[in-house]
Amino acid sequence: MDDYRTGGFTLPGEAGYEALTLKMAKKWGADVIRDSDGTRLSPEIVEAGYKIYSTICIIREHNAFAQAHPDAQQQTFLSSDALLATEDELDIAPLAGYFDQQFQLNDSPDALPFWQVWDRTENRLLPAGAWTYADGIVRVRGCVPYHRYTVSFLAWRIWEEINMYNHTTNHWESEHLRQLDPRHPLAWEYLQQWLRDWCRDNPHTDVVRLTSLFYNFVWIFGSDLRRRTRFVDWASYDFTVSPAALNAFEKAYGYALTAEDFINKGKLQATHRPPTAHKRDYMDFIQRFVAEKAKALVDIIHAAGKQAYVFYDDSWVGMEPYGRYFASIGFDGLIKCVFSGFECRLCAGARVPVHELRFHPYLFPVGLGGAPTFMAGGHPEQDAMAYWLHVRRALARQSVDRIGLGGYLHLTVGQDAFNDAIEEMGMVFRRIKALHALEKPAELPVTVAVMHTWGALRSWTLSGHFHETDGNLLIHINEALSGLPVRVKFVSFEDVKQGALRDADVVINAGRAGDAWSGGDAWQDAALTAEITRFVYEGGSLIGAGEPSAVSGADARFALAHVLGVDQDDGAYACHGAWEFVTEPADPFLIADEALAATAGIRLTAPDVKVLRQADGTPTLTLRPFGKGRAVYMGGFAYSPRAARMLLEMLLYLTGAEGRAAGLCSDALTECAWFPRQKTLMLMNNGDAPVRTAAAWPGGEREFLLKAHETLFHTVP
Amino acid sequence: MDDYRTGGFTLPGEAGYEALTLKMAKKWGADVIRDSDGTRLSPEIVEAGYKIYSTICIIREHNAFAQAHPDAQQQTFLSSDALLATEDELDIAPLAGYFDQQFQLNDSPDALPFWQVWDRTENRLLPAGAWTYADGIVRVRGCVPYHRYTVSFLAWRIWEEINMYNHTTNHWESEHLRQLDPRHPLAWEYLQQWLRDWCRDNPHTDVVRLTSLFYNFVWIFGSDLRRRTRFVDWASYDFTVSPAALNAFEKAYGYALTAEDFINKGKLQATHRPPTAHKRDYMDFIQRFVAEKAKALVDIIHAAGKQAYVFYDDSWVGMEPYGRYFASIGFDGLIKCVFSGFECRLCAGARVPVHELRFHPYLFPVGLGGAPTFMAGGHPEQDAMAYWLHVRRALARQSVDRIGLGGYLHLTVGQDAFNDAIEEMGMVFRRIKALHALEKPAELPVTVAVMHTWGALRSWTLSGHFHETDGNLLIHINEALSGLPVRVKFVSFEDVKQGALRDADVVINAGRAGDAWSGGDAWQDAALTAEITRFVYEGGSLIGAGEPSAVSGADARFALAHVLGVDQDDGAYACHGAWEFVTEPADPFLIADEALAATAGIRLTAPDVKVLRQADGTPTLTLRPFGKGRAVYMGGFAYSPRAARMLLEMLLYLTGAEGRAAGLCSDALTECAWFPRQKTLMLMNNGDAPVRTAAAWPGGEREFLLKAHETLFHTVP
Repeated sequence: MDDYRTGGFTLPGEAGYEALTLKMAKKWGADVIRDSDGTRLSPEIVEAGYKIYSTICIIREHNAFAQAHPDAQQQTFLSSDALLATEDELDIAPLAGYFDQQFQLNDSPDALPFWQVWDRTENRLLPAGAWTYADGIVRVRGCVPYHRYTVSFLAWRIWEEINMYNHTTNHWESEHLRQLDPRHPLAWEYLQQWLRDWCRDNPHTDVVRLTSLFYNFVWIFGSDLRRRTRFVDWASYDFTVSPAALNAFEKAYGYALTAEDFINKGKLQATHRPPTAHKRDYMDFIQRFVAEKAKALVDIIHAAGKQAYVFYDDSWVGMEPYGRYFASIGFDGLIKCVFSGFECRLCAGARVPVHELRFHPYLFPVGLGGAPTFMAGGHPEQDAMAYWLHVRRALARQSVDRIGLGGYLHLTVGQDAFNDAIEEMGMVFRRIKALHALEKPAELPVTVAVMHTWGALRSWTLSGHFHETDGNLLIHINEALSGLPVRVKFVSFEDVKQGALRDADVVINAGRAGDAWSGGDAWQDAALTAEITRFVYEGGSLIGAGEPSAVSGADARFALAHVLGVDQDDGAYACHGAWEFVTEPADPFLIADEALAATAGIRLTAPDVKVLRQADGTPTLTLRPFGKGRAVYMGGFAYSPRAARMLLEMLLYLTGAEGRAAGLCSDALTECAWFPRQKTLMLMNNGDAPVRTAAAWPGGEREFLLKAHETLFHTVP
Repeated sequence: MDDYRTGGFTLPGEAGYEALTLKMAKKWGADVIRDSDGTRLSPEIVEAGYKIYSTICIIREHNAFAQAHPDAQQQTFLSSDALLATEDELDIAPLAGYFDQQFQLNDSPDALPFWQVWDRTENRLLPAGAWTYADGIVRVRGCVPYHRYTVSFLAWRIWEEINMYNHTTNHWESEHLRQLDPRHPLAWEYLQQWLRDWCRDNPHTDVVRLTSLFYNFVWIFGSDLRRRTRFVDWASYDFTVSPAALNAFEKAYGYALTAEDFINKGKLQATHRPPTAHKRDYMDFIQRFVAEKAKALVDIIHAAGKQAYVFYDDSWVGMEPYGRYFASIGFDGLIKCVFSGFECRLCAGARVPVHELRFHPYLFPVGLGGAPTFMAGGHPEQDAMAYWLHVRRALARQSVDRIGLGGYLHLTVGQDAFNDAIEEMGMVFRRIKALHALEKPAELPVTVAVMHTWGALRSWTLSGHFHETDGNLLIHINEALSGLPVRVKFVSFEDVKQGALRDADVVINAGRAGDAWSGGDAWQDAALTAEITRFVYEGGSLIGAGEPSAVSGADARFALAHVLGVDQDDGAYACHGAWEFVTEPADPFLIADEALAATAGIRLTAPDVKVLRQADGTPTLTLRPFGKGRAVYMGGFAYSPRAARMLLEMLLYLTGAEGRAAGLCSDALTECAWFPRQKTLMLMNNGDAPVRTAAAWPGGEREFLLKAHETLFHTVP
């Protein structure tokens, strides 16, 4: 592997640790040195001959400006908790229960017209004359006793949320950073000039690494530590709002949004729920704004002779890499922090020149959920390996251009196991990248369409990282798919109606009743149901998981029950007898029992359904012929290497592609990729024990011995 | 107990076993001998000096008439299975999949206009011109490919369902009995004359025991043994329908019902689901019809000098004892077969002169679910004791006038343990009856209102026996309540809005989202929510169990979440942080852990909720102050004596009635009733081991030793 010692690696440098920085850059084969949130590079480092990334979070670190122009700060809509009226007058302190270091009432003259008071008991908006506001208190008059009332209001966000997170989780004590809204004309002028100045003042910087753009994902803190996080959604747009945005929206779209478009009875508009038409419009509006402003910043960076990379996390809202306007921004690179395979694919497939992954663990004392990493009790090399096993199988299918780390480099001192592991991963990565530079690895003739409300906009991801969304079946399925030798595309229900299944072999719908992944009211549309029915009847396959195509008001709970051969009893079948069944004696493909789970109320709707697994009488895995096609139902799907293998074998079974060898090793914990022009097999052991596994290529087959976790490249004669 | 050896007991006599009949009548203290379904009494028996009940099922045993007048048979609406159209023409055989010995197409000229063809994919009724019918086949033209179509149609029911059950379950081989519809003018004339003749021909009969009236509960068999029961609902009205009934309804109510009012997208109108307004009208229509016709029969029986008792099972539809018209029929007695305490209360509280219970097991080789009873492998004395323990505690609160058995008496030969047990139960029953004859036992000052869609109409019962509805929390709660020393009433949501909680201390809502017991769309009504809120805020108590007050489209999943302090995450809270909690260190009342269960997604909505129990982080029992009142949430409730004790202590805790002793023994498996004027305690051991338990009365307290299952009467000095 000596040819693969250097390049495509971004090292976090650290001032005060110049020798270490250069030593580790050499060990890990870095060609780039970057700073990180909270660190600066020293002249010794930036002048050492490496390409330099400098991190900018454009909307924060401007506290002086924010103090001088408090109306340039960012905002959000919030709803008070619902208060019970016991007489005809009720006083509501809107911010009660919210974290007062994050929020401050915006009761300015341009904000107050957007405030609303609701009778939530009867879901009725009160007329403006029914309440008054003074000194932080809304007084509601003419209440109906024993109804509950809420105030929807605008609040300034006075603490940038990532900084707030680091303070509250990692005990930072520095001044709270504020954040500016680029929609504010003075702020926008200021930010552009600031960036011009910054570029001028940082001549050594080659790449401006934007972390990220303007608006953070939504993270609402409560005042009570028993419920610190009131709401967190990596893909919500609430933090983009302001009277100026609302007025601009009305001008552009011809109708006005109200507080309720955001507040939604206090539930807000979470990404996991199907969006309203208004929300779709608003997202488009924000995406166009973000793209336009981002392009202006990128132009400034380019004018200074530098490149602009964007880190796709934190303040990313509106710049989705698969969104309509992303390409127009003109970024030179996209950097994605990755715990998982699906995040690699998300990055690798984006339309941008350079794709870079920032590996985990971050060089920080604590990691996920506050667990120790680079401190006593931590095992950073184990964490790195766990993430690598997810990432590697995705890289095998679609490589990226670069990898790297972030954080405080001095924490690697004494962490030899970690440092060696990263060195090894770097070499394997470069070998993978070299293979991909010449050709794509062989794929099976299977195209999978993952179908949900968002379609391509939320390709691979749902809302945030795996561990933030692991209660959703679909992220487990996406993670499995990220490393399989099949083609994957993400389609919306609208896409499907427009013919998006034309080139698909298998369509997957996996979610919970009413959520954006299952589809909710999308299934009220007979054209959608008929199209999937046609697709399967004519020979396609359907995989439904959890509560697929769940709908209310139809003749079945699952709109596709007649295809799947299973439906869910949500109480409507209390008097209806179910089809009795026995479990099939033989498995048509490998079944990872540990990956399956029962969804409550699942029952057969037809006698020709084969039940492959059940749990206490509830089918958990079924198979059914339908016309020329087939349908599978899974009650659950928890990602593991064996679960991924089950999914692959299921896809092969469904599509009749059995026996095709590429990517299918004899041992279920091993995977391989075949590069036909280079006659090279890449073998991966996902298990933590040595294993013998056979792999085949066109014209040959042999057995290999793989060490625990090993990656083995084998070029056949 | 020798004073209590005789009376109030109905024995099933059996021809050919005359000596046995008289012997058992003496042993069990019978004063009445009856025949049973499938048996006849011989002259030796009917002339032995006992009062005689004779069983009549008025609408069956008339096969000759039915053959001659096939249009006088009963009917029902059915829906074909949904068939997929793959081209523009589709043939549907409506009855495919139904049991052809139960159903026959009614394609007569008066029936065909009620047939409908539906596009179930888009829930669209096809115009009459879109389909034709000939020779048992509906041909649909102009289908949308890949839509599914159903035919709703009328079918004759050509096998009386109880007879069908006995044939298919107990291998009877006699001629299939048919059933007549009293709405058919000729049939009605015939049935009246038949009854007059019968009364004339049976001079020894004192009581005509009607089993029961006209229309059976709904029981639809399928052709496939893997799904023999397609639908069964003890309280549905579908089997009352006919073109004549539909036409009469239209005349009376001013609008026409259609097939879809019954078919309801193929789901039918199960009792467990909230009814449509049309169904409510139709039920009223049928109740009036049944009461009118039943009164005519009772008049015939009275004119013959006999009494008319009605058995409340089988063909009971429309004569609910708590219905609006029941009292107008003029029955002399109501007989209820009982497995459970709630059934005793259902019978005991009805407005009719004589209340009689038919105990289980039935004297038959097999019992519930085909398990052996009076045959090898059976333990009828154990079965009898198990049911008795349920029945006894209900009798302790409200007695009835009579008890009895049914079936084949010869099966008791050699069953000494059973025979002795029944003898003992008879004596205890008579003692209870004697106590109740003078006074009601003491009650705690607690009135419980059980609140659901049906209110009083479905007092105590849901739909059928306990074992048919035991998936519903509420039947477990009703069973527990049936033996508690508290007042219980059943109120509808409409009653509550009209002030029905005026005299209540505790209101209970227990069900599953969308069902008739939880309430479904009833909770869209702000007036209902506000009234319960007021009730608790002003000092009442609320017990919510399962998915109480679950509603869709509101700001919470539970309309009463703000009172309960818990709500359910059905996916809408995916991004919302939950209140953390710890379980309370001390129990405010006895908690029967085994009775509780987790309802998925339950979370706290307020910090002042006390979590008494949890399962894997899901609260299963919570308590919350609300205004001057209190609210309890239970995720599950499975009846057991300890569960009943928990409910009693909970009620005492909620109402502040702690320390009041009546009915509260020291041991949780024992219960007692106090008859103050007779200074008599009735103590019951619900456990199967001897136990020492203390019981108190006004002015005294002592400890008692009770044998397993014992009933002990103690008169204090």
